[in-house]
Amino acid sequence: MSMSDHAQLWIVGYGPGLGAALAQRFAQADWNVLALSRRAPAVPMPGTHAVLDVTARDTAQRLAALLAEHGAPRALVYDVGVFRRAPCAATGEDDFRACWEGMALGAFRVAQALLPAMAEAGGGTVIFSGATASRRGGAEFAAFASAKFALRGLAQSLARAWQPRGVHVAHAILDGMIADSARSGQHAARLDPAAIASCYWQLAQQPPGAWTHELDLRGADEPF
Amino acid sequence: MSMSDHAQLWIVGYGPGLGAALAQRFAQADWNVLALSRRAPAVPMPGTHAVLDVTARDTAQRLAALLAEHGAPRALVYDVGVFRRAPCAATGEDDFRACWEGMALGAFRVAQALLPAMAEAGGGTVIFSGATASRRGGAEFAAFASAKFALRGLAQSLARAWQPRGVHVAHAILDGMIADSARSGQHAARLDPAAIASCYWQLAQQPPGAWTHELDLRGADEPF
Amino acid sequence: MSMSDHAQLWIVGYGPGLGAALAQRFAQADWNVLALSRRAPAVPMPGTHAVLDVTARDTAQRLAALLAEHGAPRALVYDVGVFRRAPCAATGEDDFRACWEGMALGAFRVAQALLPAMAEAGGGTVIFSGATASRRGGAEFAAFASAKFALRGLAQSLARAWQPRGVHVAHAILDGMIADSARSGQHAARLDPAAIASCYWQLAQQPPGAWTHELDLRGADEPF
Amino acid sequence: MSMSDHAQLWIVGYGPGLGAALAQRFAQADWNVLALSRRAPAVPMPGTHAVLDVTARDTAQRLAALLAEHGAPRALVYDVGVFRRAPCAATGEDDFRACWEGMALGAFRVAQALLPAMAEAGGGTVIFSGATASRRGGAEFAAFASAKFALRGLAQSLARAWQPRGVHVAHAILDGMIADSARSGQHAARLDPAAIASCYWQLAQQPPGAWTHELDLRGADEPF
Repeated sequence: MSMSDHAQLWIVGYGPGLGAALAQRFAQADWNVLALSRRAPAVPMPGTHAVLDVTARDTAQRLAALLAEHGAPRALVYDVGVFRRAPCAATGEDDFRACWEGMALGAFRVAQALLPAMAEAGGGTVIFSGATASRRGGAEFAAFASAKFALRGLAQSLARAWQPRGVHVAHAILDGMIADSARSGQHAARLDPAAIASCYWQLAQQPPGAWTHELDLRGADEPF
Repeated sequence: MSMSDHAQLWIVGYGPGLGAALAQRFAQADWNVLALSRRAPAVPMPGTHAVLDVTARDTAQRLAALLAEHGAPRALVYDVGVFRRAPCAATGEDDFRACWEGMALGAFRVAQALLPAMAEAGGGTVIFSGATASRRGGAEFAAFASAKFALRGLAQSLARAWQPRGVHVAHAILDGMIADSARSGQHAARLDPAAIASCYWQLAQQPPGAWTHELDLRGADEPF
Repeated sequence: MSMSDHAQLWIVGYGPGLGAALAQRFAQADWNVLALSRRAPAVPMPGTHAVLDVTARDTAQRLAALLAEHGAPRALVYDVGVFRRAPCAATGEDDFRACWEGMALGAFRVAQALLPAMAEAGGGTVIFSGATASRRGGAEFAAFASAKFALRGLAQSLARAWQPRGVHVAHAILDGMIADSARSGQHAARLDPAAIASCYWQLAQQPPGAWTHELDLRGADEPF
Repeated sequence: MSMSDHAQLWIVGYGPGLGAALAQRFAQADWNVLALSRRAPAVPMPGTHAVLDVTARDTAQRLAALLAEHGAPRALVYDVGVFRRAPCAATGEDDFRACWEGMALGAFRVAQALLPAMAEAGGGTVIFSGATASRRGGAEFAAFASAKFALRGLAQSLARAWQPRGVHVAHAILDGMIADSARSGQHAARLDPAAIASCYWQLAQQPPGAWTHELDLRGADEPF
């Protein structure tokens, strides 16, 4: 049903940092890119953009419509970030809920809508962006860490369920702040979006003889 | 504000298995027990029962009223279990949400309502019941594991935030099925509720010189 | 073959901190204590002391002789510490080997010599003392962390092999410095030896319905 | 001091499976390959072979001589495998020692000899091959798992010590059996050596803006 023969990358949670770097990396290899986010990007990007709010109740229908229009993606990146940092006692239920709805429930909705289609279309790769907080709940990250933990558990379940059916599921732990993409490559203690995009590209190229489920990524000078 | 001088244990998610064993164990040491769950227990228990649905919107107010009536607990066990097991593709959003609301959001609400009061009253112990799925997302546990991961991340944040203020926060990974309490002690491959209760009791006795944040518990014959 | 009907605790790597606290705690419950270390303790302790160097080639024979003399222990604590801290490039092979021989090979020798006898005598509990470095290899801990990791892997294998035969195997992660036993209970940011000993005592009391394999212990004010 | 301007890959523990695939992959990109193992390979390989037994006492001198002859490697793979599987009680001290000497002490010796030279020559990448047993001590893997745990701890320490000085240190968890290289690409439940080699190649290409320290690799159909 796709308009073209090119493989497609869908980026859910597209933004000017990692999202833009991913669009560039995959477009460079002649993939079509469908960027999805709540608002249209301010600067032009390679590929198509469509509005998607993963916290909206009609997300499943919206994704079904996009599938009907574009066909199944070969690669899917889930990079929705809902960041909250606050002392534990000052963390409200709204924060706790917002982090989970954007980062875990949204990922669940996207997976449930797209993975069957990906499997049916011959398989592909799904990459979830995690964070330091995916494995460590810091004192000021009750809302953020709990939601990133939830995403990690979900990613494991999805990998065990879908990998035997041809869909490779990966969870990337981005350990550190992502550098401003305009300065890509400059700060060794910061994660470089172009370098992350290159790694995600490689994950999408892994043959079934050696799939990575989880890996970490950090700048060379990042303490850990 | 407490009616008595006895230390109090609050059990959120009281049930006839672990909840009943905890009530017995702490009552035996002369603690007062306040059992909280959606429905009154079918069989008599030592202590008081009050109705609490942690997924209800007024949970915070309800807990504030209970605090006003009973005073702050010295020990708090969060043992709400919302179990779901289903193939990944057959897991609905309702399941995903129900597990998280009962096991993670509920825990957050209870912690936000009670930990400040516990710290102010001189400290105490909070124990969250985890599961095998707290560290491993199985193919048929997308909803359950994601929520148990979320609870684990929350428990870590709470420990780091509250332990310096005197509230010990522990996360117990219950690895296996819990035996029917009527047959307590009979099945070595099953977790014995009385044995878990005894361990929780010990956690609540740990002096500040050696606090456990995380431990696992399984029957002697349980493969792992 | 035991001289008495009392249950025995053997402490391998006895010292004036945790070792002494353990001897006191178990003796108080009327256990016999056999303390083993390279040199006789400077201050009197409850129980018997015997010289044992776990890095000596005749360790197996030495332990067989002790078994013949005393009978099988009901509880066994392996608390040999060989501490090294140095910049990675300045860490010599001697350090690397010394940490492993004392903390991993010694544990293996002790386990191979004693666990069959413990199983045959009806079971019991083995506790290995780990450290922060059991799960995290810091830049200045190449020798120490590698050996503590090795001990952790060994403890897991032993648990899986022996628990079905009645020997409970636990690994305690002691996260932080242990306070001077003379000031036991004074410093919340330090691990209190008496508090650790109390926890080890509880581990040795756990019924087969809920055995802990791994737990962490840290002072209330210890950052983690 | 190198004879050529080509970047060099050194493979310690060269064999006909992963070693051969690595040699091919890097040679294809015009790297020079130095294969090191106890015996010369039976079949021709791209690059040079030299005899090295990492358990020999003169390993450091031997490596210094190789450095003097060939110059510092840009990439270094440590893939020495000493496999043992036996019931715990039947595991001898020889097995326990052999696994550690080959997989942990050997890695330490190689790192101590080569990493300073790599840092001085401008940096590079070191990859240690781990296994399922790097994170899980199975009942029949006391010797193997303990040594693989030791290697993992060492790899973490090396990463924290050397990454700020330009040497990227990675630990790859190879989860499963490696397929016979003659049938590369045939069995989805087996790890394909060519696919692993391709992943190691990518690790060696990662720019300092996003370095992976740990990742897992398994066949698409491998249960985990």
